[in-house]
Amino acid sequence: MKSSFNTGDTRFIASTDKLVPMRTRERALKAAVTVVATKGFQALTHASVDAEAELPAGSTSNYFRTKSALISGLIEHISAPEQRSVPEVFAPETPEELVDKVSALVIELTTNRREYTAARLAIFLSGNHRAEIREGFAVGGASFRAAVKACFERFGAEDPGLASDAIVACAEGIIYRQIVWGFDIDPRGQLGLIAKGALASS
Amino acid sequence: MKSSFNTGDTRFIASTDKLVPMRTRERALKAAVTVVATKGFQALTHASVDAEAELPAGSTSNYFRTKSALISGLIEHISAPEQRSVPEVFAPETPEELVDKVSALVIELTTNRREYTAARLAIFLSGNHRAEIREGFAVGGASFRAAVKACFERFGAEDPGLASDAIVACAEGIIYRQIVWGFDIDPRGQLGLIAKGALASS
Repeated sequence: MKSSFNTGDTRFIASTDKLVPMRTRERALKAAVTVVATKGFQALTHASVDAEAELPAGSTSNYFRTKSALISGLIEHISAPEQRSVPEVFAPETPEELVDKVSALVIELTTNRREYTAARLAIFLSGNHRAEIREGFAVGGASFRAAVKACFERFGAEDPGLASDAIVACAEGIIYRQIVWGFDIDPRGQLGLIAKGALASS
Repeated sequence: MKSSFNTGDTRFIASTDKLVPMRTRERALKAAVTVVATKGFQALTHASVDAEAELPAGSTSNYFRTKSALISGLIEHISAPEQRSVPEVFAPETPEELVDKVSALVIELTTNRREYTAARLAIFLSGNHRAEIREGFAVGGASFRAAVKACFERFGAEDPGLASDAIVACAEGIIYRQIVWGFDIDPRGQLGLIAKGALASS
């Protein structure tokens, strides 16, 4: 048996069943995202996560014994849903559809998943030389690039790898700009220019 | 009279003349860049700058009385040289020259000015809602975009503003990727695709 109060705030969940521990872990991870997105990666500690999640002191440590385990858990929490969405996103049949799908992903990452994206950028910037962080995110980035490259191969681009790199760089630049400045940009026009350049006869 | 020891480290400057105070200010600002680039914006305090600069406690406070003054000084220190370089960069006569010049700027910002760029990204990410930070950097960004847009107008692009936005977004994505992942990418190919797309007949 479980019940949840629909207050619009996922922290207010009451439960009487065995799922509580798992939800406490999720609650800690959500709070970790908020801490990093709003206060920076340096602010991530077991204590700051407990406080943000309004959990008793020591709760986060029950699930993530070390700082390293907390970081790994956070990276997995951020990147797993994004990696799951890659296969769905990348079966476009035309260049226009590819541009639409990448644009939809950019919009998702800067609206519904805005806090996750802000946390990811903050982790990236702080994780310059930390192998665990680089590796935690590298898989998703590589599979995304490979999927876009395969599309451009099918569409007959002269240099599919270059086209993929340019689309991804532009998408990341737009994401970064939207997170930082809050600009509301439809990415389709910009990404469309790249697809046009990649597929133009030379 | 002044003399400097050529140790490759600008902190080791000996001086007996009146320029010392100005150089102490510069030394604090350079240290502030290092603090933010390596430890994050949250780590920026008068004390952390004194320590990084190996200055006596209280030195940074002599020049920047408040945290706000320190932040403003840091933003000006980072952005002023970049804004000065805009007019030189943006008198290209051909699309190829435009791509070369933007590429050279991307390379400069991720090699010689790498620490400044890392600090700027960290400040941006932390400064989401701080008007002083947004305004401090907005002028340079706007004049850069306007200069690129004017180039595309001269070159006959169908939508010069869109072309400028796409070039700048892609350049920012490449910069971000190089700072975070350390990839060594020549930006010309990617930026060239955008110029090609922007100038292709539709």
